[in-house]
Amino acid sequence: MGNKVSVGLLGLGVVGSGVIKLIENHQEKLVHQLGCDVQVKSVLVRDLEKQRDVNTDRTFLTTNPDDVLNDPEIDVIVEVMGGIDEARQHILKAFSAKKHVVTANKDLVALHGQELQKAASQNKCDFYYEASVAGGIPILRGITEGLSSDRIQQVMGIVNGTTNYILTKMDNDGMSYEDALKEAQELGFAEADPTADVEGLDAARKMAILGRLAFSTDVDLEDVEVSGIKNISLEDLQHGNKLGYTMKLIGNANFSNKQLEVDVQPTLLSKEHPLSDVKNEYNAVYVYGEAVGETMFYGPGAGSLPTATAIVSDVVAAIKNMLLGVTGNQLVEPHFNKQLKTPAERVGQYYVRMHANDAPGVFSAISSLFNKFEISLKHILQTPFKDGLAEIVLVTHQTSLENFRNTLKELHQLDGVLDISSYYKVEGDAE
Amino acid sequence: MGNKVSVGLLGLGVVGSGVIKLIENHQEKLVHQLGCDVQVKSVLVRDLEKQRDVNTDRTFLTTNPDDVLNDPEIDVIVEVMGGIDEARQHILKAFSAKKHVVTANKDLVALHGQELQKAASQNKCDFYYEASVAGGIPILRGITEGLSSDRIQQVMGIVNGTTNYILTKMDNDGMSYEDALKEAQELGFAEADPTADVEGLDAARKMAILGRLAFSTDVDLEDVEVSGIKNISLEDLQHGNKLGYTMKLIGNANFSNKQLEVDVQPTLLSKEHPLSDVKNEYNAVYVYGEAVGETMFYGPGAGSLPTATAIVSDVVAAIKNMLLGVTGNQLVEPHFNKQLKTPAERVGQYYVRMHANDAPGVFSAISSLFNKFEISLKHILQTPFKDGLAEIVLVTHQTSLENFRNTLKELHQLDGVLDISSYYKVEGDAE
Repeated sequence: MGNKVSVGLLGLGVVGSGVIKLIENHQEKLVHQLGCDVQVKSVLVRDLEKQRDVNTDRTFLTTNPDDVLNDPEIDVIVEVMGGIDEARQHILKAFSAKKHVVTANKDLVALHGQELQKAASQNKCDFYYEASVAGGIPILRGITEGLSSDRIQQVMGIVNGTTNYILTKMDNDGMSYEDALKEAQELGFAEADPTADVEGLDAARKMAILGRLAFSTDVDLEDVEVSGIKNISLEDLQHGNKLGYTMKLIGNANFSNKQLEVDVQPTLLSKEHPLSDVKNEYNAVYVYGEAVGETMFYGPGAGSLPTATAIVSDVVAAIKNMLLGVTGNQLVEPHFNKQLKTPAERVGQYYVRMHANDAPGVFSAISSLFNKFEISLKHILQTPFKDGLAEIVLVTHQTSLENFRNTLKELHQLDGVLDISSYYKVEGDAE
Repeated sequence: MGNKVSVGLLGLGVVGSGVIKLIENHQEKLVHQLGCDVQVKSVLVRDLEKQRDVNTDRTFLTTNPDDVLNDPEIDVIVEVMGGIDEARQHILKAFSAKKHVVTANKDLVALHGQELQKAASQNKCDFYYEASVAGGIPILRGITEGLSSDRIQQVMGIVNGTTNYILTKMDNDGMSYEDALKEAQELGFAEADPTADVEGLDAARKMAILGRLAFSTDVDLEDVEVSGIKNISLEDLQHGNKLGYTMKLIGNANFSNKQLEVDVQPTLLSKEHPLSDVKNEYNAVYVYGEAVGETMFYGPGAGSLPTATAIVSDVVAAIKNMLLGVTGNQLVEPHFNKQLKTPAERVGQYYVRMHANDAPGVFSAISSLFNKFEISLKHILQTPFKDGLAEIVLVTHQTSLENFRNTLKELHQLDGVLDISSYYKVEGDAE
C-alpha cells in the first residue's frame, strides 16, 4: 500500500464528480487522518469524449470495467454508476478481487444488500453504503455504532428531498402539486421523470435499508407498503394545519414484540414532532430507542458534495480498517427472523375527510359506525359544503389498521355518506 | 477473555445505575453484536450501605479503587463518578493496568482530555467519551467518523438542557427566569445549585471537546468566552420574537483561515435556523461542513438511560476493538497549532436595546455612530417609553466584534442616550 491508497470509480456523474473534487480538495485532511495519500486512479465511464466539470487530467478514464476492477494497485472501489444488474456484477467482481466497496446505490442495496454483504464477508472485504440513505447524514453509523447498545423501536424518516420540497411549497405557499413539482424540477430537486420519488419508491428503498440495520431483521422491498403524494389536495393540507398537523411523506418502520411493520405514505404529522420542522429539500431521520428515547439526524439528503462526503467518509473507514488489518468485520447477520405484523396488530391514528348529507341522524350514524369498531375520535370538524352537504373531517385516536379498514368499508355504504374524499395516517400525537 | 467481558464501574449514581440496567436489559443485543456476554463485575462506591434502585446482587460493591482498577479479569473501566482529580488518577491507573476507559465526565475531558488520550495511546488502550457531550446524541462519532472526510467550519450547539428548558419556558409561557428555574429544579432538569449550568460553564466544557474534535486543534477551556442566562429579560425575548428570533444559550465554535473562535452566550437565533426548534430539555448540535453543508444531531442531553446508551455504545466499540486486536488507535494528535481569532477577526451580528431621549437629532446621532464604525443596521424598532424616552432596538448586519465593542463604548457616552439595557449576539440570519 505504501504511502498511497488508490481508489477506482465506477461512474462519473454528479456524485462521482463530487467524489473526485472532495478527495482532491480535502487531501490534507485525509493525509492527516490516514497518514497516506488517497488518489482516484481510474474511472469507468460510458463515454470517453464527454465534457466533464471535474479535473480528470491525472485520472485514467476507461470504458472497460476490468481496467478498474482488475487493477492490482486499486484497493477500494466506489460504485456511483447506479442501476441494478451491471452494478451488482461489478461489485461481486470487486469482492472476488479482494477490493473493498463503497456504494451510494440505494436501489441495489435495498434489493441485494444481504447478498453483497455476504460476498464481502466471504472475501474479507469491507462493504459500506452510508450514502445510500439520506445523502450526507451519517445515519447508518448513527444507528449501527452510536446507538449500538440500545434497542431501537421506531425509525421515521423524511428520506426523499423531492417530495419534501413539493409538500413544503404546497403547505407554505399554497402551491398546487403540479406547480410545486415544476418548481422542484427547475431547481434541480426533482428529476425530469419524478415517478420513483413522488410515488414513494425511492423512500421505500431507504426505509428497507434503515429497517434492516435498526432492527437486525430481514426487510425486503416488497414488505414496505408504499403510497405516494400525487393525490394530496390542498384541502387536506389546510384541514391538517387547522388541527395542528403538517403533511409529510413519512417512511415509518416499527419493531415491537419482534414483529416488523414498514410503510411509506403521506402522513399528517403533529407540529410538535421534531420531523415536522424539516423543510424544503432537507432530509431527517428520527430514531426512537428504548433507552435513549427520541433522537433525530438532520441534513442534506442529496447533492453532489453532500453525498460525496458520505462516500469518502466510508472510504476513510475502509482504509483505516486496511491499515489496521481488520477489514471484513462488518457482517451483522440478521438476528431476528422476519415476522410481519398483521393489519390487526398494526396500530395508528387516522384522518378521514368525507361529504355527507347535512340531515338529522347522518352524523350520528357515522359516529356509531366508528364506535362499533371501537374507534374513538380525537378531532371532529364539520363545515357546511355546497348543495345541502356537509364536509366532515375526523381524526381518530389509536386503533388497529384492521378496524380502520373495516370502518372505511362500511362508511362507503352508509346512507347519507356521499364520498370519502381522502384518508391519511396521523403520527406524532401525544396520546 | 473467553465468553465474557467484565466491566468495572467507578461510581454508582444516576448514570452508573443506568449503565447497570442497560447492560442487564440489553444483554441479548450485546451478545448478538459481540458474541460474548458483558458483565459489570465490580463497582467503586463511597458508601456500601446506601439504598440503591438498581439490582447489584451479582455485583461486587467496593470502596477500594484497587479492587476495580487492579482486577485482572476486568478489561473495561467505566468512569461515572464525576469530579476531576480523583477521576483523573483512577483513569491514569486504569491505562497503566492496560484497561480501556469509557467516561461521561465532561469536566475532566475538557480539562485533561489530551493528557488522558496520550496515556491511553501509550498503553495501547481505548479512551472513549461520547457521553461527555450531549448525553444520548452520538455527536462525537458523527463528527469524527460520519463527517471524517469533510472540513468542518462551524459547530453550534444547544448543549445544556437546564438552560434550554428555562429559556423555553420564558419564551413560550412568559415565565420569569426565577420561576422557570424553580420549575426546572422541581422536574429534575436543574440541580439544587444550578451555577455551572446557568452561567454557561457546563456548555463551555462541551464546546471545548466539540471544537477539539471538529477542527483538530487544541481548545482549552480558557479559550471559550462564556456568559450565562441569568440577566436575560422577558423584554429582550419579546423584542427578539417580533423580529423573528428565539433566545437560546448557544455554544458556537468557528474555524476559518485555520483560526479558532469558541464562545457560549445567550444568542438571538433566527427562527429559520434548525436549532431554533429545539425545545425544553432537549439538546442538539448543528454542524456546518464545507462539503456536506448543514447537518444537525438532536436528542436527549442528559438522563440516566440516554447517557447510559452513549456509554454502553462506547463499551461495545472498545470490546469490538479488543476482539479485533486493534485497541488504542483513536489517537488523533491535533493537526493545527491553536491560533485564536482577534476581536477584529471575529465577525457576527448583534442586537442592542437602549433608552434615549425622544428628541430631534438623537436617533440620527446614534445611527451616525454605527455608520462611523461601518456597521449597517438590519432591523430598527423604536417605541415610546416612559418619561419622554424612547426604547430603541437595533439589529446589525455582520460586523467585527472590535467595531461593535467600540460602538458600544462611544454609545455610552453619547448625548441623549440614557442606558444600554442589553446586547446579544444574533445568529442564523440569511445574509
